[in-house]
Formats: sequence, structure tokens, C-alpha cells
Amino acid sequence: MPFPASVRIVEVAPRDGLQNETKAVSPDVKVELIERLSTAGCRTIEAGSFVSPKWVPRMADTAEVLSRIRRVSGVAYPVLVPNLRGLEAAIAARCEEVAVFASASEAFSQRNINCSISESLDRFAPVLAMAREHGIRVRGYVSCVLGCPYQGAVDPIDVASVSRRLFEAGCYEISLGDTIGTGTPFNAVKMVETVAEDVPIERLALHFHDTYGQALANIYACLGLGVSVIDAAVGGIGGCPYAKGATGNVATEDLVYMLDGMNVETGIDLSQLIDAARFISEKLGNRPNSHLACSLDRG
Amino acid sequence: MPFPASVRIVEVAPRDGLQNETKAVSPDVKVELIERLSTAGCRTIEAGSFVSPKWVPRMADTAEVLSRIRRVSGVAYPVLVPNLRGLEAAIAARCEEVAVFASASEAFSQRNINCSISESLDRFAPVLAMAREHGIRVRGYVSCVLGCPYQGAVDPIDVASVSRRLFEAGCYEISLGDTIGTGTPFNAVKMVETVAEDVPIERLALHFHDTYGQALANIYACLGLGVSVIDAAVGGIGGCPYAKGATGNVATEDLVYMLDGMNVETGIDLSQLIDAARFISEKLGNRPNSHLACSLDRG
Repeated sequence: MPFPASVRIVEVAPRDGLQNETKAVSPDVKVELIERLSTAGCRTIEAGSFVSPKWVPRMADTAEVLSRIRRVSGVAYPVLVPNLRGLEAAIAARCEEVAVFASASEAFSQRNINCSISESLDRFAPVLAMAREHGIRVRGYVSCVLGCPYQGAVDPIDVASVSRRLFEAGCYEISLGDTIGTGTPFNAVKMVETVAEDVPIERLALHFHDTYGQALANIYACLGLGVSVIDAAVGGIGGCPYAKGATGNVATEDLVYMLDGMNVETGIDLSQLIDAARFISEKLGNRPNSHLACSLDRG
Repeated sequence: MPFPASVRIVEVAPRDGLQNETKAVSPDVKVELIERLSTAGCRTIEAGSFVSPKWVPRMADTAEVLSRIRRVSGVAYPVLVPNLRGLEAAIAARCEEVAVFASASEAFSQRNINCSISESLDRFAPVLAMAREHGIRVRGYVSCVLGCPYQGAVDPIDVASVSRRLFEAGCYEISLGDTIGTGTPFNAVKMVETVAEDVPIERLALHFHDTYGQALANIYACLGLGVSVIDAAVGGIGGCPYAKGATGNVATEDLVYMLDGMNVETGIDLSQLIDAARFISEKLGNRPNSHLACSLDRG
């Protein structure tokens, strides 16, 4: 089986995680979280987003956070940008990588960003053009790849179609998001196989939420196809706006534990990662949403 | 891949789950739990154990519980027995199936039941003989198959050795227990493959604890080998005596959700199962230890 020898983990807690938490944390806490993650060995840390504070108030301090973190050589600190204004802010903040997002579900696209999938892709064309001019790498997120809170099932063909368009538009990597965490292993494998017919598998990342506890099983199944980039959030923070009481992104420490056990290299120190999980969970007033942090908590 | 078309789930919440919970529940609650589980479609429900109440006070009411449950045709209600006295009590309680237990770890065997692995197997010989006379089926548990809280690593060869001896002694099925939940997918696969050289794979069951969040991934990996019997506890109840704050057995509802998504037949109604999880978790004063029950809880 073509299991990868190493996996690059994209740590999304400072953005996807904190964005969806009920409690806000200060820029100080965000800076410390990001620095703990780079110290633990994370090489890609999504640091925030330049979106309207009206829509995502939790991310209003992204410029401040980016100006204050100690940037470690070799570590990327991408930010999410929805449009040219966001990209300009990212350039001003000396970002070397940004991310754009589209959905594989028409219903989700309409409700989430008020336009069709096709319109959303058209809107990103000038963003990608300007990013290219500035030598900024662009990552593409595709949401609802294994189910949509509004339309239910999502056809893998639709996931492949939007993934291919983002890739052809210049995204160097496509992150496939199981936004509501309803996927199971066979569905996940079928979806990735379908997308891989249009986008090289080494350009695909998994972004699975653990809402129904399926994330690690789904990731394991897709690793068997050769996928080697995985998004995760330390402490499993983030929750799910579509399922109250649910967990969020797969917890990075649970993922790293699995990969360590499989001798798949991540470059991340598990013990420091767990400390980071405890740090941010405490600041959020939560128990960590990871098995590992809870199991090792003998306090 | 030889994924099974159907899986038999052995529901262990009334025994392995309740035995390890801090809070005791009344026989009334146990009877209702067992009946909810059979109504939901569970076909094997471990109902209790006949062990000394001095060692396991939570199970002291097993005879009463067995006398009061409405026994559904086609449903097995096995109980754990450590010795002849336990078997005699099981016979008196009209049990048609019992379970014995040994460990793959010498250190665990010594600390848990005060004798070597070999001595523990010798002790079960008369139990198996008397069970055979009475037409009672015997299931064998092997603990610490993927790690031991005292000796650490456990060699798959040792798991195979004790499994083979239990099988040869007359156990119809061997349940492989990752007692402390430290296993990861490759280790789990290697262990099952090794045991399957000595015991037919259709006679093997997985009994994985979710202490480190790995259970579903490990189960998925082993299903790919053709294993088709899995132990689980509704609500993920039980905790782990070796890791404070940890979750217990893999939650049956998270497992059934995965299997439903894979079109693997279980005969279990997920919605009634989740109701049973909420019922017992509430009686224990806990939030259910399953992603599914939490995610679907919009209250």
C-alpha cells in the first residue's frame, strides 16, 4: 500500500479553530499559541484571516497577531483571504501564503458566501493573479466534500470539478474539507480517488472534522491512497456551527499519535503539542477535545 | 479487500462499561439498559459477571439482573466467569454463554489476577470442561494485546500463543483486547495477522478501547483483514482505570455510524442506540462519551 513515509500537517487551530469558538481570546494568546505550535515542530500554521470583522469578529486582530509572532525560518503562516482587499491586507502583513475557499455544494455556497460555486471561483481569479505577481502561494479550500448541512449528499464529481478549477487557477494545493464531519472511510476514499483523477494526489490535503468521530478512520483510509498533507487543530478546538456540542477539526495530537505509531514522520513533538493543546483549551475555558490530552491528564 | 458484508457487535456496556464507572447504578437501570439494547437490535449483550463482589462490587447484582431481563429470542446474554464457582452461578442463572479471560502480558496477569498466563489458562480448563457438559458456549478474552500498563510493549507472538491456547481449550471465539487503547492501525493489523496464523480469523473479535482516540481507525484497518466481530460499549462508557479522564470502550454508536456508512450490516438501529447511550449516560451523571450522541444533542 502506498502509505506515505512522512506527512505534512497543516495546523489550523489559530484560524479554523479559534474562529468557531464561543469564547474570544486576546492577541497575546494567539501569538503564544502560534509560537508554541512552531516550537513543537509545526511547519505550516494557519495564522488567521483577512475577512470583514463584521462577519468573523474573532479574526479582526489578524494583522496584529502576524506583526507580533516570532517567525521561524521554514515555517509558513498562511492566512485566509476572501477577496482582493483581504489579499492586500495579507501582502501588507508580509504573508507568503494565503488560502481561498470554495464549496463543493451549491446550497452551501449560496448560504455561506451568497453566490454560486462558479461565481465564487470567478471572484478568486483576480486574487490568484495578484498573488502570482507578488510571489505568494495560494492554497484552495473546498468545503462540504463529504456532505452538506443544507443539501445533504455531495457528489464526488462535484468535488473533483471545483478542485480542478482551483488547481488550474493556480492553487498549489487543494484542501478537501469534510465540513460537517459526516464522512465515513469508503466515502472518503471514493471522493479522494475521484478528485485524484483531476488533481495530482500529492497536491491534495485532507481537512476532516471529527463531528461524528470518524476523522482518524477516514484519514487512515485516505493515507492508504498516498495522501500526505493533513489539516488538524491542536486540542480539537473549533466545534461545529452545524452540530451543537460537537467536536471540531480532528485533534492534531490524536493524529500525530496515530502517525507516530505508524512510523510516519511529522516532525512534531507530541509532548509539546499536548502542552499547546492544554494551553489553548484552558484559555478557552474548555477541556481539550482530544483523547490524548484527556488521557494523559492525570491532574 | 475482504471487508465483511456484516459485522456482529458484542455490546459490553452492561459489564465492561458499568464495571469501570465511578458511579453505581441500580439493577433497575441495568435491566432497562439491557432491554433497550436488545430492542435496538443488539444480538450479543454481555450482561454482567459472576466474580467476587469483594473485587468487583458493581457486578454483585448480576444474578438479579439476569432473572429480571426479558430475554429476546436470538439474543445472547453472556457473563464473565473467573472460575468454577462463577460458572455454577451462571448455570443457575440460565446463561447460555460465558466468557473467561487471560492476558497476553505476564506483568498484567500477575498484577491483575495474581498468577502467570500459563496458570490462568490451567485454571480455566475445568471451567471449559464443565461448560461443555452443560452445552454452554465459552468466549475467551485476551487483554493487553497492543500494550500493557506494566510491561509496555506486548509481542504479537505472545498474543497469538494465549489466543491459540484458549481456542484449543474450547473457546468458540477469541476477543482481542487493547485494554489501554495504545494501539495504532499498523500495530493492530500486524497483531491480528499474527494471531490469525493460529486461530481462524472468523473466530477473532476486536475489543478496542478508545483511550487515545485510535479505536475506529484500528477497527477499520482490521476489518480490511476480514474480522467481523467487534466489541463496543454504548455511550463509550467505562473509562480506563489506567488513564484518568480517558474514554473507555469504543462507543457502539460511533462504530455503527461508521459501519452504516460503509454499508456493512449490523442489524442495529442507530437512533435507538443513541437513545440508549443518552439513557445510561444520564444515569451515570455523564455526558455521553461518543461523538455521535454529543453531535446529535441539540438540546
